[in-house]
Amino acid sequence: MSNTLIPIMPWLGGFGLLIAALTYVTIKRYSAGNEKMIDIAEKIHLGAMVFLKREYSIIAIFMVVIFVTLSLALSIWTGIAYLTGALCSMLAGWFGMEAATRTSPRACQGAKDGEAPRALAIAFQGGSVMGLCVASMGVLGLAIYFFFTKHNPQNAPLVINGFAMGASSIALFARVGGGIYTKSADVGADLVGKVEAGIPEDDPRNPGVIADLVGDNVGDTAGMGADLFESYVGSVVATIAIGATFANPIPKMALPLVLISIGLIASLLGIWSMGILKRMNPQSALRTATYVSGIIFIIGSYIATNSLIGDTRAFWAILAGLFCGVLIGLETEYFTSGPPIKTIARASESGPATTVITGLAVGFKSAILPVITICIAIFVAYKMSGLYGIALSGVGMLSTIGIVMSTDSYGPIADNAGGIAEMSGAGPEIRKITDKLDALGNTTAAMGKGFAIGSAALTALALFSAYQNTVGLQTISLTKSTTIIGLMLGAMMPFFIAALTMEAVGRAANQMVQEIRRQFREIKGLLEGTASPEIQTCIDIVTKGALREMIAPGILAIASPLIVGFAMGPEALGGFLAGATATGVLLGVFMANGGGAWDNGKKWIEEGNLGGKGSDAHKAAVVGDTVGDPFKDTSGPSMNILIKLMAVVSLVFAPVIARML
Amino acid sequence: MSNTLIPIMPWLGGFGLLIAALTYVTIKRYSAGNEKMIDIAEKIHLGAMVFLKREYSIIAIFMVVIFVTLSLALSIWTGIAYLTGALCSMLAGWFGMEAATRTSPRACQGAKDGEAPRALAIAFQGGSVMGLCVASMGVLGLAIYFFFTKHNPQNAPLVINGFAMGASSIALFARVGGGIYTKSADVGADLVGKVEAGIPEDDPRNPGVIADLVGDNVGDTAGMGADLFESYVGSVVATIAIGATFANPIPKMALPLVLISIGLIASLLGIWSMGILKRMNPQSALRTATYVSGIIFIIGSYIATNSLIGDTRAFWAILAGLFCGVLIGLETEYFTSGPPIKTIARASESGPATTVITGLAVGFKSAILPVITICIAIFVAYKMSGLYGIALSGVGMLSTIGIVMSTDSYGPIADNAGGIAEMSGAGPEIRKITDKLDALGNTTAAMGKGFAIGSAALTALALFSAYQNTVGLQTISLTKSTTIIGLMLGAMMPFFIAALTMEAVGRAANQMVQEIRRQFREIKGLLEGTASPEIQTCIDIVTKGALREMIAPGILAIASPLIVGFAMGPEALGGFLAGATATGVLLGVFMANGGGAWDNGKKWIEEGNLGGKGSDAHKAAVVGDTVGDPFKDTSGPSMNILIKLMAVVSLVFAPVIARML
Repeated sequence: MSNTLIPIMPWLGGFGLLIAALTYVTIKRYSAGNEKMIDIAEKIHLGAMVFLKREYSIIAIFMVVIFVTLSLALSIWTGIAYLTGALCSMLAGWFGMEAATRTSPRACQGAKDGEAPRALAIAFQGGSVMGLCVASMGVLGLAIYFFFTKHNPQNAPLVINGFAMGASSIALFARVGGGIYTKSADVGADLVGKVEAGIPEDDPRNPGVIADLVGDNVGDTAGMGADLFESYVGSVVATIAIGATFANPIPKMALPLVLISIGLIASLLGIWSMGILKRMNPQSALRTATYVSGIIFIIGSYIATNSLIGDTRAFWAILAGLFCGVLIGLETEYFTSGPPIKTIARASESGPATTVITGLAVGFKSAILPVITICIAIFVAYKMSGLYGIALSGVGMLSTIGIVMSTDSYGPIADNAGGIAEMSGAGPEIRKITDKLDALGNTTAAMGKGFAIGSAALTALALFSAYQNTVGLQTISLTKSTTIIGLMLGAMMPFFIAALTMEAVGRAANQMVQEIRRQFREIKGLLEGTASPEIQTCIDIVTKGALREMIAPGILAIASPLIVGFAMGPEALGGFLAGATATGVLLGVFMANGGGAWDNGKKWIEEGNLGGKGSDAHKAAVVGDTVGDPFKDTSGPSMNILIKLMAVVSLVFAPVIARML
Repeated sequence: MSNTLIPIMPWLGGFGLLIAALTYVTIKRYSAGNEKMIDIAEKIHLGAMVFLKREYSIIAIFMVVIFVTLSLALSIWTGIAYLTGALCSMLAGWFGMEAATRTSPRACQGAKDGEAPRALAIAFQGGSVMGLCVASMGVLGLAIYFFFTKHNPQNAPLVINGFAMGASSIALFARVGGGIYTKSADVGADLVGKVEAGIPEDDPRNPGVIADLVGDNVGDTAGMGADLFESYVGSVVATIAIGATFANPIPKMALPLVLISIGLIASLLGIWSMGILKRMNPQSALRTATYVSGIIFIIGSYIATNSLIGDTRAFWAILAGLFCGVLIGLETEYFTSGPPIKTIARASESGPATTVITGLAVGFKSAILPVITICIAIFVAYKMSGLYGIALSGVGMLSTIGIVMSTDSYGPIADNAGGIAEMSGAGPEIRKITDKLDALGNTTAAMGKGFAIGSAALTALALFSAYQNTVGLQTISLTKSTTIIGLMLGAMMPFFIAALTMEAVGRAANQMVQEIRRQFREIKGLLEGTASPEIQTCIDIVTKGALREMIAPGILAIASPLIVGFAMGPEALGGFLAGATATGVLLGVFMANGGGAWDNGKKWIEEGNLGGKGSDAHKAAVVGDTVGDPFKDTSGPSMNILIKLMAVVSLVFAPVIARML
């Protein structure tokens, strides 16, 4: 059975890419609006693409170093797989960004044509290019490697692991660099523009506003895409590595590939169903499309599991992962848009200090349920199929990534459409439509973040299981002092990365503040609207800042597991990974949800509650929101990458580290 | 050899108590100043004692429940040991508080007599009563239990463990309740008094100011005392439990008792040396006295280790612990009074949001070195003497608790002396002296907090080692899903407690704010100084608030390890403890140092930098300080208790949980 399916899969991946390309062509045919809109959109597009280009050229140096290392330490094939994995992630990011930045003016124009459903449909189409690219690249790349290595099942993982490591290293730079970019631009533009100069958000007089809009793309679209692509590939690779240890390995190794293929088909059908659903209210439309994909995937995976490995128990492990993702999404939604945001808003009435204290408490609290949810998923998955089950649950959660990522990418497109409407001086009617789509984008973004963390946790645990298997450890025992030391050091890593990324945003934002202040001071007529700001210098500053600041966390994340592994042995490295995963998940949820709750608490006040905009409560809430910015968009998401990347590096090098046993 | 020493030890403990009593009598003979000073001091004294009384009566209910449980599940002797341990902690807290509250007006009067050295000497004497009570109670109680149980070395730990659990449960309530008390009073009094009404700190017109001063005593003196007492007892008990498993157990079990006896003697000599050193500058005097004790202890412990167990390797484990404590103290000092506080202060120039972001980054960063330091200590200790060495390193760190606690208790006494000077209208000359002593107190307090966290980490790890031994586990393997689930849940606990305690301070402070606002509104002539505030209602509110809010975290900390242990087995509980210790230490350091750095960043601005008091930077720094208050004095210190208490509960119930294997 698997012999029939495996050769089909690369074609399926190719088909997904074709659909993505056709969607892109369709979008380009829509009107991009008047000259002003086209001009603004072009600037955003250029800024985003220049950032990606520079980012990729720095990454290229890393890639060469790691390629050589892998080729020497393991095999040239692992090195090549590494390059391919990295390339797939880069291409998905590139296409997705290209589509996203081309879509936003068209979604804005769609709103101008007076129709919310049309604007929604266009924005979603733009997001689906990213979603399909991510899903298809994964299917295509993984299936090809599996096809060519499956004649030697025991060695296949050694090569395919490299693919996951490639995806991971791009994710690190895209997420950390993108996160620093988006937040330093945002904080910088807001601090001088909104607070000091008193001009509205997205005002064309603000020299930092284009950089801010570019930031939404590089952080929320490219960063998120690379993050989820890493989880997606990582969970499949982990399952393949564990599957290879069974007596009859091929079906067990093929199963995750078949699952993501079904997920891709399900996503295509879900995306297609949006064409029918678009007349519903936007939130229900997005949700229904996701459910359509989910149900198709559940049915398909039940059939696949039974016919491929003849074991319904594995199906329950897959389902546990899928439900885990949905539940964490709902939990995130509760903490970032439910009653807790009102608690924060009310605390704002006593000033900024209580706003911050309450937000931190909400963040801490919000970490409880997701961890319990993950624990239940692990328990069920392990009970059903052991370590293989844990890995499968990750695949179950991520198979429908095509639709999940489409929904998530929709957010920054809607956000940018709103920015373009504001900057091009579109009327209040249009703003209303884009605001509505943007607000929905905030909800999907918060859920997307929850999903990203949950999937990172399951993927990291899956990779951890694969690491144990590959390194050949019977136990990783906490009764040994080296394991405890590994655990403590691992648990420390997320704090280290949090410190580095928070400081990075502070430094880069500060440079931005200085530059915007300088322009307001030196460019005559800027505030009066008679002169144009020098937007390019602002873009340059954040681009350079982000690229400079992403290097230290990057090296740290790649080098630390190797140092621990080679200096203290494979068991200590096991403790290290477990410690990092535990704290990384907790800190990630704490920061993402705390930040999201501050943001929405402020928005709730802006809707006219507790005195509305301009009240003292609002000023206090703005402080909370600013503190939350690097939390939710830089440091928090960096945790996802950190735990997966460290696990995948350990897995790739496991055969070498194992020799120390 | 041990047979000669053991019967002497209880007498030594008694002797220490005698010296404490004599010191107390000496202090009482000093003049307590004029009528106004006596009146204020009496109110603080009463407030503190009433809080302790009510706290203890709530704890009494808990004690009965746990006594019955222990007697039924283990043995009546464990139950009795539990009661004794709790009683020792309560008595030490009671005496220490009695002395501290009696000392502060006398230290103030000492300053009035125009002499900083005299004020320092009196304040230190007051602190030494707490230090000696804590050290002596430990020696006395533990030595008596050991004397009566040593004929049956295998069963001795089962009883003595109960003593540690008693100390731990008091610590939980004293630390959490005291922490909530002190910060809700502080935040409440400051928000309305300083910010809204614009009157200075410690102004007698503020209805909350006495509650605030009481808070310094219940949080910083009683809470800290119970915290360190718990570490002290816990590390000794862990060493005894591991020592009992050796072939010739008595000397190995006696060693920790001999060490703390030597530590008590060293502390007595250190305290006595302060009489000679008091003419030095205050900071050097305190430091030199600590070094005197340290050196005496090192020499004594070298001799004791060699003659008792004939193994120099164990001595190096002890030394590793001692150095670990000193290093963490210095690291804490760097982050809470070194360059990082200026970084925070400078960030305050861009407003409260950047102040908070920078402080959080400093906090995250400050967690790195202490963890590495602890890892090195564990590595050395384990290399030297295995699990026994890890436990011994904890004892090494805590043996000189007498002098460490004396130095630490000095802080709140100096703080209160300053408050009394302000409230009684003493001149600026006296304020200058008390301010100087107070500033020094802040440094010793920050170092004390670092020491408390470091000792909590080592004690928790020691107890964890003892748990493994007692429960009879050969491995606690992370390759099992239950262990990983235990680890994740354990890592979650500190976040849970952080959320509960942060919210608790918020709620209690809010009630305080309402009440103070009411008094300013309703009591005519209060702000003009012609009417007196109703201080008693404020004290009542925070007392009730703190006692109510400490219950949930308390139950959670005691019940959770039992639930995990009985529902998922001893190995999962092992993972749970390891996870909790790792995150607890990190979160504890992050919060304590972040809070301390914000506090001192604000103080640095108040010294006249960056515009000084009243500048925008100062206002932003006040926000940071307020956020840091519950961080450093409530939630952060709660982590110490949490990790030790959960470990000691697991150790006590290990024989019952072991039956599940």
